[in-house]
Amino acid sequence: SSDVLDTALAMQLTQATDRLLEGIDTLSKVIRRRAFEHKDTVMMGRSHGIHAEPVTFGLTMAIWYDELQRNRRRLEDARETIAVGKCSGAVGTFANTEPETEDHIMRRVGLTAEPAATQVVQRDRHAHYFSVLAVIGATLEKMAVAVRHWQRTEVLEAEEPFTKGQKGSSAMPHKRNPILTENVTGLSRILRGNAMAAMENVALWHERDISHSSVERIIGPDSTILLDFMLARMTKVMDGLVVYPENMMRNLEKTGGLTFSQRLLLALVDKGMDRQAAYVLVQRNAMPVWEEGKDFMTLLLADREVRAALSEAEIREAFDFSFHLRHVDTLFQRVFGD
Amino acid sequence: SSDVLDTALAMQLTQATDRLLEGIDTLSKVIRRRAFEHKDTVMMGRSHGIHAEPVTFGLTMAIWYDELQRNRRRLEDARETIAVGKCSGAVGTFANTEPETEDHIMRRVGLTAEPAATQVVQRDRHAHYFSVLAVIGATLEKMAVAVRHWQRTEVLEAEEPFTKGQKGSSAMPHKRNPILTENVTGLSRILRGNAMAAMENVALWHERDISHSSVERIIGPDSTILLDFMLARMTKVMDGLVVYPENMMRNLEKTGGLTFSQRLLLALVDKGMDRQAAYVLVQRNAMPVWEEGKDFMTLLLADREVRAALSEAEIREAFDFSFHLRHVDTLFQRVFGD
Amino acid sequence: SSDVLDTALAMQLTQATDRLLEGIDTLSKVIRRRAFEHKDTVMMGRSHGIHAEPVTFGLTMAIWYDELQRNRRRLEDARETIAVGKCSGAVGTFANTEPETEDHIMRRVGLTAEPAATQVVQRDRHAHYFSVLAVIGATLEKMAVAVRHWQRTEVLEAEEPFTKGQKGSSAMPHKRNPILTENVTGLSRILRGNAMAAMENVALWHERDISHSSVERIIGPDSTILLDFMLARMTKVMDGLVVYPENMMRNLEKTGGLTFSQRLLLALVDKGMDRQAAYVLVQRNAMPVWEEGKDFMTLLLADREVRAALSEAEIREAFDFSFHLRHVDTLFQRVFGD
Amino acid sequence: SSDVLDTALAMQLTQATDRLLEGIDTLSKVIRRRAFEHKDTVMMGRSHGIHAEPVTFGLTMAIWYDELQRNRRRLEDARETIAVGKCSGAVGTFANTEPETEDHIMRRVGLTAEPAATQVVQRDRHAHYFSVLAVIGATLEKMAVAVRHWQRTEVLEAEEPFTKGQKGSSAMPHKRNPILTENVTGLSRILRGNAMAAMENVALWHERDISHSSVERIIGPDSTILLDFMLARMTKVMDGLVVYPENMMRNLEKTGGLTFSQRLLLALVDKGMDRQAAYVLVQRNAMPVWEEGKDFMTLLLADREVRAALSEAEIREAFDFSFHLRHVDTLFQRVFGD
Repeated sequence: SSDVLDTALAMQLTQATDRLLEGIDTLSKVIRRRAFEHKDTVMMGRSHGIHAEPVTFGLTMAIWYDELQRNRRRLEDARETIAVGKCSGAVGTFANTEPETEDHIMRRVGLTAEPAATQVVQRDRHAHYFSVLAVIGATLEKMAVAVRHWQRTEVLEAEEPFTKGQKGSSAMPHKRNPILTENVTGLSRILRGNAMAAMENVALWHERDISHSSVERIIGPDSTILLDFMLARMTKVMDGLVVYPENMMRNLEKTGGLTFSQRLLLALVDKGMDRQAAYVLVQRNAMPVWEEGKDFMTLLLADREVRAALSEAEIREAFDFSFHLRHVDTLFQRVFGD
Repeated sequence: SSDVLDTALAMQLTQATDRLLEGIDTLSKVIRRRAFEHKDTVMMGRSHGIHAEPVTFGLTMAIWYDELQRNRRRLEDARETIAVGKCSGAVGTFANTEPETEDHIMRRVGLTAEPAATQVVQRDRHAHYFSVLAVIGATLEKMAVAVRHWQRTEVLEAEEPFTKGQKGSSAMPHKRNPILTENVTGLSRILRGNAMAAMENVALWHERDISHSSVERIIGPDSTILLDFMLARMTKVMDGLVVYPENMMRNLEKTGGLTFSQRLLLALVDKGMDRQAAYVLVQRNAMPVWEEGKDFMTLLLADREVRAALSEAEIREAFDFSFHLRHVDTLFQRVFGD
Repeated sequence: SSDVLDTALAMQLTQATDRLLEGIDTLSKVIRRRAFEHKDTVMMGRSHGIHAEPVTFGLTMAIWYDELQRNRRRLEDARETIAVGKCSGAVGTFANTEPETEDHIMRRVGLTAEPAATQVVQRDRHAHYFSVLAVIGATLEKMAVAVRHWQRTEVLEAEEPFTKGQKGSSAMPHKRNPILTENVTGLSRILRGNAMAAMENVALWHERDISHSSVERIIGPDSTILLDFMLARMTKVMDGLVVYPENMMRNLEKTGGLTFSQRLLLALVDKGMDRQAAYVLVQRNAMPVWEEGKDFMTLLLADREVRAALSEAEIREAFDFSFHLRHVDTLFQRVFGD
Repeated sequence: SSDVLDTALAMQLTQATDRLLEGIDTLSKVIRRRAFEHKDTVMMGRSHGIHAEPVTFGLTMAIWYDELQRNRRRLEDARETIAVGKCSGAVGTFANTEPETEDHIMRRVGLTAEPAATQVVQRDRHAHYFSVLAVIGATLEKMAVAVRHWQRTEVLEAEEPFTKGQKGSSAMPHKRNPILTENVTGLSRILRGNAMAAMENVALWHERDISHSSVERIIGPDSTILLDFMLARMTKVMDGLVVYPENMMRNLEKTGGLTFSQRLLLALVDKGMDRQAAYVLVQRNAMPVWEEGKDFMTLLLADREVRAALSEAEIREAFDFSFHLRHVDTLFQRVFGD
């Protein structure tokens, strides 16, 4: 009867996985669409939560798309690894059945046979499977966290979809809270915990103990259904995500041009200036921008030492977004092909 | 500089992984040898810790070998997924470098470039990688737990290698404790915990936050070195494992032939007996064996109703190990090929 | 409305906890009864799965009882830490309510107020709570694993309760499998995973994000209900556990007296023999017992050098169980008081 | 010798814990100071990352202080639970020693004796201990995440301490990245993983197996040293945290007064208006603020229906921060006492 149970489990998990693969494809398609839609929508790139250099919103989508394809391949592998049943008897020796019968049954149910089994299909397969679900969950968490960051009041570069007239919080009518992505963020934690439980299921005693079963009855449905829900939810979010390019531009301008300090530095070095000297020059113009809200370009144009090395045109060129984004097409090609 | 750090990390992890792949191969080779050595060494199969039907020690080795090969493939995939560096600048846009330079550098260091990066290579790759290490750890834990079960005083079917004259515990000179495999059992827990931490590293903020770094500085060396150590240790254990076929046979005989009750049941059913009736017959002869230590075959030979259905020869045939093990060659072929 | 939700959650969790505390008390009472019932039932103590020195079955029960009382105290603390609601408004400032109202409501529902809250009660409380549930789960797992070890065919010192005539496995009528405790073993893994998720819930953004909520809707009911079930199941198991003192004695005698080697060693040392010399003497008599199944006492009585140091009476005294168990009453007093 | 090892472990862990308790006290003192310093520094409260109602920076500090005190009590309990050694011999029966000796030794080393031990002190104690370390880690993570949020370019309400002239990123001289708190964020993940491993250590076999030992040799030093480091780091961060009250005020004004919509709603309801009607009124004035950047108060003052219910003075009163903060002293008293 463990033959039946294990084969049934494999059938259930592979069926659930087919649905999950579809879910990844649907989400991927949506994200691909948003990528091309916003290929050139300039957005501030941030490291450590601090403004760095410009990217485009589409580029972020391309990165996510690529990650989803990696996850798809992982899930295909994981599907293969759990699409395995058995019909080899109480300890896997075919004591009261024949290998041919097993082959026949497995073909009928669309599985392969565990090449050599104990009483059960080996649980490294399931540990691998549930850890892949958790990795996919972590990818969705990453997307969810990104949306939540964009929707912050001070940032407001994108918002979860909402219907016209939709209230935010009932107590504060102006609020629109990113509750869909907060929900996804939380659920990724459950998937991680379940993966841990699956890993503890591997070391069964001798030809099997049944401790894995109570675990699988919980995490089997929970992890697959939760991930299906998370994929559907993120598809909805990304499909209807309200993107605010004008706010992205507003944020870009917020640091008075400091974004371009790195390029300025390199422009000075290109002119033959010593790197440390260039650094000092850039920093002395950057600090009043940061601390007193002055405009970087204005200061640079007025700095005699800077001007000795760079013409006005050269300075202005360093402040050109298009320079930063000249390889976006290359990056899209890398991800989406031609 | 995150370009350098991420590329260096990829180089370190791939190098460590090559060593781990070798470790798996070395262990596999040892286990393969033990599999063929003990292909026909009969051992009691146990489910729930209770005697079930006979297997062979070699069959267990074959199952482990097969699982190691699955783990090898997982690790190869995981290696590919983390053999990825980047040289695309502060936010992945090649603002101050060129894609060609990246391609060139990656070729030089034997990596591929992240198709589309933020400031860093995406951390789903590492989450996948460390969870594969943890799955392999769980497989080694399973082997370790099996050895510990075999070495139990009451079972004593195999022992970790020891040198002639080696003391066991200093307090109890007769003890030989399976401390190598207990050690491996514990270390698998560390690998699991580290995999969880790696999964939490995926959802970095915007184009990166550096929270993953403190984690990776710990789990990078720890998980790879620990797994390397565990592989080496299990290789040593399995290479020198002292197998006691005579104790296996002694244990097999311990339940007075009850092992063969399932076959008896089927033999009666084959003769046309109703299954429930056959069950009652078998059980009434089985209980005195279990409860009073009688011999199953003797009781069956003396049971008039049993004898009405089965001849002495047929009863004796049901007690033949070789019946249980007639498919061992097939199973070996499935695992090791021809 | 987060005021209402958090207060409701506290009411649910405290109510669930009261039931869990009762569950611990019921299990403790059963284990206390079994402790006194088997205070003097001698059983082999095992370290590393290898025979060490005798203990009593009752002692094991006393150790478990003590651990359950520790867990009870932990759960009481955890109950106190989550018996906390709030009614301080959207960001905890009582902007539209008054502290007195909160005090009044909390008294009515039997909770205390979060001294200083954000939009929600702080989640370190819940992280602590769910980790305590997981620790209790680990204690139950320990008991479950012990029962499973005792029920192993080769050990058979105790069995899960079964009704007269109960089948074991349908395929193998003689099998009685410890499925209740295997089930508990598995469920402890779920509790651990859920505790991890609760710990990730602590670091909410600013005055709250709602990512914790999807987690708590799953782990709140799951972890409390599972632990309740596990406590009830272990109560049933321990209440009806079938203990086999005669098998314990049979196992004790299995190593031909080697259990007493440590006492022999000390007896020789007490007589003034050099420790290393005594060790060699003991070991040369122990090895033929281990390897050839000889009887330890017989060999010792015939060993001239041993006899030069110890009289027959002194040797026989070293083989007396009661020496090992002379402090059982003291240990019971430590655990259960007078 | 397990007596010696377990007693030594208890001595090491209690000593480490004393240092951790000091670390909590030092951090608490710093946070208390910042709490009183900024008791009345108004800051926008945010739920879901979206502006909600005003709080003060000091209030956040008070909440943290309170949480640290809870963690201190947990750590004191956990210290007590692992301040336990043993000297009761190979299986805890005092076979070759006496309880009085144990009492004597434990007093000498400042521990208590495990009331009833197996070969080892029971590991539920350590599972509890390491999960408390992980909960404290989660609290520090929460603080770290808060600092990182405050330091975001668009928010910039506080920054990690920096020395005059300190560079941010070498590539982008204007950047000051919250790398100390990002580091702490990551390390909390390690503490969680280690807690999981400690929980798996509880279910040792019979009177002990040594699988816990390899785990403890890693997580014992790692978790205590990491937490010590995290406490010291957060103390440094909070001691020198650069707080920008003027930026807090700027952010507060960012939503044009929408913060006060809830109070407006209640003011209208207080005047006898139907709640749904009041809601519609507030929302129609709130939307142009949100969508077109208008000023909430100006719109309200010009809305005839609003003015029919509320005088100019009453409207202005609803926009008064001090109303929101009138209970700050009460909250401080709840946390810090008189």
